[in-house]
Amino acid sequence: MQSTKPASGMRDFLPEDVRRREYVIGVIKNVYEHYGFEPLETPAVENIETLLGKYGDEGNKLIFKILKRGEHEASGQADLALRYDLTVPLARVVAQYQDKLPRLFKRYQIQPVWRADRPGRGRFREFYQCDVDSVGSTSPLVEAEVWGAVAEVLTRLGFTDFVIRINHRALLTSTLNAAGIPEDLHATALVAVDKLDKIGADGVGAEMASRGIATEAAAKLLAFFASRPELDQAAAFVGDDQAGTSAIANLRAILRLVEQTAAAGKVRVDMSLARGLSYYTGAIMEVTVADLAGSIGGGGRYDNLVGMFLGQHIPACGFSLGLERILVVMTERNMFPASLALSPADVMVAAFDASGLGEAMRVAGLLREQGLRVFVYPDADKIGKQIKYADSRGIPFVAMLGENERRDGTLTIKNLGTQAQDIYPQATAAAAIIEALRQRG
Amino acid sequence: MQSTKPASGMRDFLPEDVRRREYVIGVIKNVYEHYGFEPLETPAVENIETLLGKYGDEGNKLIFKILKRGEHEASGQADLALRYDLTVPLARVVAQYQDKLPRLFKRYQIQPVWRADRPGRGRFREFYQCDVDSVGSTSPLVEAEVWGAVAEVLTRLGFTDFVIRINHRALLTSTLNAAGIPEDLHATALVAVDKLDKIGADGVGAEMASRGIATEAAAKLLAFFASRPELDQAAAFVGDDQAGTSAIANLRAILRLVEQTAAAGKVRVDMSLARGLSYYTGAIMEVTVADLAGSIGGGGRYDNLVGMFLGQHIPACGFSLGLERILVVMTERNMFPASLALSPADVMVAAFDASGLGEAMRVAGLLREQGLRVFVYPDADKIGKQIKYADSRGIPFVAMLGENERRDGTLTIKNLGTQAQDIYPQATAAAAIIEALRQRG
Repeated sequence: MQSTKPASGMRDFLPEDVRRREYVIGVIKNVYEHYGFEPLETPAVENIETLLGKYGDEGNKLIFKILKRGEHEASGQADLALRYDLTVPLARVVAQYQDKLPRLFKRYQIQPVWRADRPGRGRFREFYQCDVDSVGSTSPLVEAEVWGAVAEVLTRLGFTDFVIRINHRALLTSTLNAAGIPEDLHATALVAVDKLDKIGADGVGAEMASRGIATEAAAKLLAFFASRPELDQAAAFVGDDQAGTSAIANLRAILRLVEQTAAAGKVRVDMSLARGLSYYTGAIMEVTVADLAGSIGGGGRYDNLVGMFLGQHIPACGFSLGLERILVVMTERNMFPASLALSPADVMVAAFDASGLGEAMRVAGLLREQGLRVFVYPDADKIGKQIKYADSRGIPFVAMLGENERRDGTLTIKNLGTQAQDIYPQATAAAAIIEALRQRG
Repeated sequence: MQSTKPASGMRDFLPEDVRRREYVIGVIKNVYEHYGFEPLETPAVENIETLLGKYGDEGNKLIFKILKRGEHEASGQADLALRYDLTVPLARVVAQYQDKLPRLFKRYQIQPVWRADRPGRGRFREFYQCDVDSVGSTSPLVEAEVWGAVAEVLTRLGFTDFVIRINHRALLTSTLNAAGIPEDLHATALVAVDKLDKIGADGVGAEMASRGIATEAAAKLLAFFASRPELDQAAAFVGDDQAGTSAIANLRAILRLVEQTAAAGKVRVDMSLARGLSYYTGAIMEVTVADLAGSIGGGGRYDNLVGMFLGQHIPACGFSLGLERILVVMTERNMFPASLALSPADVMVAAFDASGLGEAMRVAGLLREQGLRVFVYPDADKIGKQIKYADSRGIPFVAMLGENERRDGTLTIKNLGTQAQDIYPQATAAAAIIEALRQRG
């Protein structure tokens, strides 16, 4: 017998899963829309040249590649590939539709991406990214708005304990310089610094030594990080370094604006925040919640990437929320609203025999017109069996249509929660059910 | 320079495209939900064995196949493939989650599928299918509900001229028998009959002759079709053939129930309707609109397919709406509601200088809280340039925040449609804009 499992690292979403996912996506979209971000969708499949070379050697290996078709299939060559992130497609779109897109383009994109990572707990080969990017302006307002929007998403979803950790790429460089780490060792130093959360200061110190960084410089840097410096301390540490000073001024400008957003009080300067991706050029950020290792999203300013297909610099700042991680935490913490309808319907219409099915359909139409989600039981099974079905599906009400009800133009509504049974005129039954649903919350 | 076009046959959806697509998908989902169908989502990528051999030889060639990864990449072998339709994944899901899924399972699924067809006008390699299927019952109510739901979707989208053409697979067989076409030529005969719309009766007659069907039998069949028979004439034509008589009884039972649904008055019996796919076993249907060649969707009962992975028969009836074709017709006919917001925001907040950006963000928060979609202009450009930007983006209102407004706690609201400019207290500006938006419709 053939396996019917989904492919390795992929998931089927049964109805309750879909409803939970759509609830979260709905909140994210709603907030982004209110911040003036516009929806963009790109194909799942890209020309392979569009993706190759954009994600480093490791990334190249994780790209799902699609075989050429027809006579070329036997060649084993790939000409297409599955979308690996939402940023490279944005860069392609910005280049392709220059005449159609505005000078200031704020877009959100919520779509799956595919990576051939080794599947593991919470690590999937198909997963959704929720990206928001603002293209075309270097104003600190851009950062403040992205951070504010992200904070509002999380607040609306019920998170209260999230922290937005921020830093600045140029300030990080300036800090490394001030610690005495030569420029050509910055990249390797940052790889080590990026592990501070995981392996601690001693671990990072050892790794830096093994990467050829002088013990004294490493110690100075780590002592600075350990002092949990705010921007004032950072300013003192970098002294009169021009790039560092500008970066601090930029962060201060952003922070002043952030005070007017939902991110107020949620932002912490973290001078050791490095972010893995090398393409950031300005302020960077990462959002963490208490009981989740790693972040639930991150982003920053990257003024060199979106213009890559145009061969020019286009300022941009973005953030990517990890839908799967948000769902993990919300499920563990039971954060979904009780009012989220997970059942297939609000009410099931049950006829007593086959001759009543037409009436059942008519009544179902009546109930639907008034906004109810209605499941009509399709077969003339015994009423007990029908009610048992509704109960097993979590459908809270059964509208029964027997001979008496058909004669009198009524419906007997059984509340499966309370077992109460009441008779209503067909025209007002919907209102009674809606009211009872409202009371259940 | 690298090409930035999407891959051949694939499309990017810019914001206005996405909004139109989401509007249509929203209507479809809403109706299906009210009919008690539940959402299902399956991965874009399936194990290749799940798909191969399910769509015939032609279909096999059109499947996008994914290269094995890592050391196997050089082998040119494929182990995964892109979803080709939504029915085979449903069959897989029904087999995989027998213990979790209900005996009667009504699901809808709205996701893209990929086919390596030659791209052409209105033919894409990535396109959305909107499937609705009812699994587990043979009741005629199942068909009536599917047809009713589809009719309600189209009515809600503003279609008034659609026709649901119906037939029955067993009745078609019975008709071919009655015309004197031997069983072993039925399949080839149906391939010809399927082209009746395209090549007319003479063309079909010629093709049938070339396929070895006796002229007399072909003529009898085509004359019967040409008489536009209703079920009474069909009953007379098939005489006392058991299968044909049962099929007619089944169609009559469905039609009686359909009278209670949104499909009432929209259904036409079409004895020549064959539907290409060979897996149908009962009533079949196809929906057409006046000025579109071909259908905008089709479906029917197929009692042998959903259980294929289980090796058992599971009754099922479904319908697949073609989102891309609906969008083509709606765009040509300008059927989108005027109230569909295509602009990036309801209002743009404009500060006069950089020192006003914080206030602009605060005011934006105030307007958003009251439900408005707000775009904050990020740079301290001249006010004329800012207003020009809003106008070019179709943002209907600009909220200006100069020195006076900041001092007085007011906002000057410019209506870009009428050029009228009014001053409001900041707290009540949102209400004024909402009212003005309402009046614009």
